[in-house]
Amino acid sequence: MSKRLLVATVVAALAGAAHAQFQKPEDAVKYRQGAFTVMGNHFSRIGAMVQGRVPFDAKVAQENAALVVTLSKLPWAGFTPESEKIKSRTKPEAWREMDKVRAGADKMMKAVADLEAATRTGNLDAVKKTFGDAAATCKACHDAYRE
Amino acid sequence: MSKRLLVATVVAALAGAAHAQFQKPEDAVKYRQGAFTVMGNHFSRIGAMVQGRVPFDAKVAQENAALVVTLSKLPWAGFTPESEKIKSRTKPEAWREMDKVRAGADKMMKAVADLEAATRTGNLDAVKKTFGDAAATCKACHDAYRE
Repeated sequence: MSKRLLVATVVAALAGAAHAQFQKPEDAVKYRQGAFTVMGNHFSRIGAMVQGRVPFDAKVAQENAALVVTLSKLPWAGFTPESEKIKSRTKPEAWREMDKVRAGADKMMKAVADLEAATRTGNLDAVKKTFGDAAATCKACHDAYRE
Repeated sequence: MSKRLLVATVVAALAGAAHAQFQKPEDAVKYRQGAFTVMGNHFSRIGAMVQGRVPFDAKVAQENAALVVTLSKLPWAGFTPESEKIKSRTKPEAWREMDKVRAGADKMMKAVADLEAATRTGNLDAVKKTFGDAAATCKACHDAYRE
């Protein structure tokens, strides 16, 4: 099996498993939006420290980063095939390039895990670096797939 | 300090801390709705096993319960004083009885922790019992404070 075919098969399997999680396509949309909203909020709280808007508190940063790591795994299940027809800010391209979306998701999950590891060191410079890297993975997908 | 006054003081302090988390009142509403939505989804996945709609899988139940425990701590921060004016399904009574809301939240957080402990035993009867208890804590607040 080629790597490309393997990825497609895994994505299809994940999508199938995810599908069972939602009774209606609308539920999948609300779920992924909810997960992104809560994740974004906690990510932003670290951002406020990185940007110096609030004092750096390594413990608070780590708590927020841990939440971001947990939440980073969730929204992808909400991109069910059936949910494409429900109006949202997600461009139709996302469903046609779901292997790229999944690859972007993997990068993001890795980046926020690195951020969480940095918060554990208590080193603000390391937090700044990994926060910026993680933010870049968010932006990449938003630029490509969000209206 | 009386216990009642202590609770009120703690609630006010929490609300103050929570407030800093949101730039706009609308953000607080979206945040709490997002947290409830994602929590409800994972709680329902355990419910499907409890009700026999899907086969019981202790590992999957435990993973979902762990997510519910994590998420159960979040939405309360979204009931900021400023967010009362934003249209939502939450009745105005919630803001006037925030100490009762907080007490209900504490019961719910305790109940889902008990559910998570039960999923670790792998005993379906224990999961059923604690799931029912947790669902009752959800319903109590919904009946009182949700339109």
